[in-house]
Amino acid sequence: MDIQDYKIRFDRIYSQMKKAGADACLLSTHVNLFYVCGRIYGGYYYISASGDHVAFVKRPNNATGLPRLHFIHKLEQIPDLLREEGIPLPQRMLFEGEETGYDEYHRLMAAFPTTELLNGSHAMRIVRSVKTPVEQELIRQSARAHAEVYRLVPSVYRHGMTDRDLMFEIEFLARKHGNLGLLRSFGNMDAFMGILLAGDNAAVPSPYDYALGGAGVPSNPIGVTGIPLKQGQSVMVDLSGDFSGYLDDMTRTFSIGKLPEKAYYAHQVSIDINNRMQQEMREGAVCEDLYDLSLQMATDAGLADCFMGTRQQAKFVGHGVGLVINELPVLAHKINTVLEPGMVIALEPKFVIEGVGAVGIEDTYIVGKTESERVTHLGNEIIDLEA
Amino acid sequence: MDIQDYKIRFDRIYSQMKKAGADACLLSTHVNLFYVCGRIYGGYYYISASGDHVAFVKRPNNATGLPRLHFIHKLEQIPDLLREEGIPLPQRMLFEGEETGYDEYHRLMAAFPTTELLNGSHAMRIVRSVKTPVEQELIRQSARAHAEVYRLVPSVYRHGMTDRDLMFEIEFLARKHGNLGLLRSFGNMDAFMGILLAGDNAAVPSPYDYALGGAGVPSNPIGVTGIPLKQGQSVMVDLSGDFSGYLDDMTRTFSIGKLPEKAYYAHQVSIDINNRMQQEMREGAVCEDLYDLSLQMATDAGLADCFMGTRQQAKFVGHGVGLVINELPVLAHKINTVLEPGMVIALEPKFVIEGVGAVGIEDTYIVGKTESERVTHLGNEIIDLEA
Repeated sequence: MDIQDYKIRFDRIYSQMKKAGADACLLSTHVNLFYVCGRIYGGYYYISASGDHVAFVKRPNNATGLPRLHFIHKLEQIPDLLREEGIPLPQRMLFEGEETGYDEYHRLMAAFPTTELLNGSHAMRIVRSVKTPVEQELIRQSARAHAEVYRLVPSVYRHGMTDRDLMFEIEFLARKHGNLGLLRSFGNMDAFMGILLAGDNAAVPSPYDYALGGAGVPSNPIGVTGIPLKQGQSVMVDLSGDFSGYLDDMTRTFSIGKLPEKAYYAHQVSIDINNRMQQEMREGAVCEDLYDLSLQMATDAGLADCFMGTRQQAKFVGHGVGLVINELPVLAHKINTVLEPGMVIALEPKFVIEGVGAVGIEDTYIVGKTESERVTHLGNEIIDLEA
Repeated sequence: MDIQDYKIRFDRIYSQMKKAGADACLLSTHVNLFYVCGRIYGGYYYISASGDHVAFVKRPNNATGLPRLHFIHKLEQIPDLLREEGIPLPQRMLFEGEETGYDEYHRLMAAFPTTELLNGSHAMRIVRSVKTPVEQELIRQSARAHAEVYRLVPSVYRHGMTDRDLMFEIEFLARKHGNLGLLRSFGNMDAFMGILLAGDNAAVPSPYDYALGGAGVPSNPIGVTGIPLKQGQSVMVDLSGDFSGYLDDMTRTFSIGKLPEKAYYAHQVSIDINNRMQQEMREGAVCEDLYDLSLQMATDAGLADCFMGTRQQAKFVGHGVGLVINELPVLAHKINTVLEPGMVIALEPKFVIEGVGAVGIEDTYIVGKTESERVTHLGNEIIDLEA
């Protein structure tokens, strides 16, 4: 455990607590527990503004290595145990409001009757939006494995496959290269390991807020549908990159035979937007401006009507990535977040060509002072799987 | 869409609304939307006690086939649209409290200022706990595919594999047999497609409330760890059975070579408990009694100290299964739920033998009037993968 790296994390949390006027923060989601102590347990992690850390663990019953560890059966024990530790009960406490159910919320209010509970979910997302050096390195590590998996996609393609067959092969490749499989998200996006979009399935409006969706099946309405891959279709592969506990995000486009000229043209616009944004995503840049620039480039190329979908168009072009697939910041209208070095952004300018499918690339970038570092290294071109 | 089958579902919902004194119910989780209309969308489904159904859809923008469909941008539009439809605003409304975040909860309260909001998450779990004929058939369908995958496990084993290698092969088999991959749960259990436990990894206390856990890796602390499979180890395979949108649950035990006699003995006790419980899980039986009977059989066999774990023992022996992996009812202490025909229960009496691993089987049963129907059909014996 890199103590210096955790110090950065806690300083970011203290800073958000101060901003919210909170003298304590109580965490229990898997993602935030992993962020503050490098492990996941059933229970709570309490942080006071004066620097006290206390771990309350329900499971596992052999947990070790946590600060001031107490085993508990229920959250109602926490106030008494804090008093035992000589820690005064907080006046105002951040808790994970978005992830806390109704019963637990009301139990927390009853257990801390003199404490004002503040929804700290967004604050913790802001904390996590700037990655520490250790986190950045884990994302680079995921990106390397991710690129290697995509490089091998042509090797698992067989003529006559369905979109589903190919997806299974790529998932299996990813698992064998260390993909842990979890696609954690903020809110429930309910995807499996990612999506593969072949042909017009890419244009199907989605119930989810992904860049593109695909029809899927009724109980899992995203991605593949089981249709045979056909000559002249593009095949967009967008798997999550959970190879290290930290996610990168990456998309590459393949084709079954040759595509119409417009597909290659639009694909090149996506590459151009990525290249330009790699320069522009730097300290001080504003999310909305970056979205507007991407949209402007798509518009200037005459492709506004198929940018991020056709029948339903996603209203963002990039998103944070890290412990979940949709970290902050989001590159979208009305988002005035100012980029900071260490933010990690997946940029995915994509186009849907009716009758062909989706084209474009997605790469993951670490924001720097003067430009951003692309961590997903692989060729950009559309690879013909039949070649 | 089988109208008669949906009528059963709505009658169950009306019954819970009546019990709660609610004149409306507002649903938005994927699972409950799928339950009431056979599809998943971003938005809300409103049900009034007088039989009005209104669908409010954010995404996809081409949704069709829903009752009194309105496209909305935000939940605040709902009250006005209800008035437009001539539906009076409710006095008391069930909403999915456990799955509704802090912001949405407070927005709902503001949008319905004269309505009392009641946490209906548990009521909807009770609704879903008794499966309709269509749901039962989908679970049987999943169970058939699940059994076929397990039958093929020995065909993908290779001497010298790690637990992880074998897990990847089984996942791939499952996908090729139609497994949709999603392991939806109530609360966040964060598992991938299921777990495989080899040797002493089965004894590792888990942060999650599964029957058994396994160490996994820090960011995904469940299941395989990458250790080579060794002579004399048991290999327990417990994948979720999402082959139809509805889950069955099933566990079978394999071995690397021959195991010590105690392992076969404990495995037979698990089979015996399953056989006895298949008779006992019938209309009118009480969950707690069924748990006590299972525990008693384990105790009588001299195996109480390794029943459902050793260092940390799970305090249940069975659980509902259907749209999520942990439906109601739960067979555990202090659960006085009375079984009804159509409830679907996965029974998993498991034992952990130190130095060997986990043994036992899990089957899924549909509760009937005089006994229950086992839907997971496959041999029970421990299969030696080296044979």
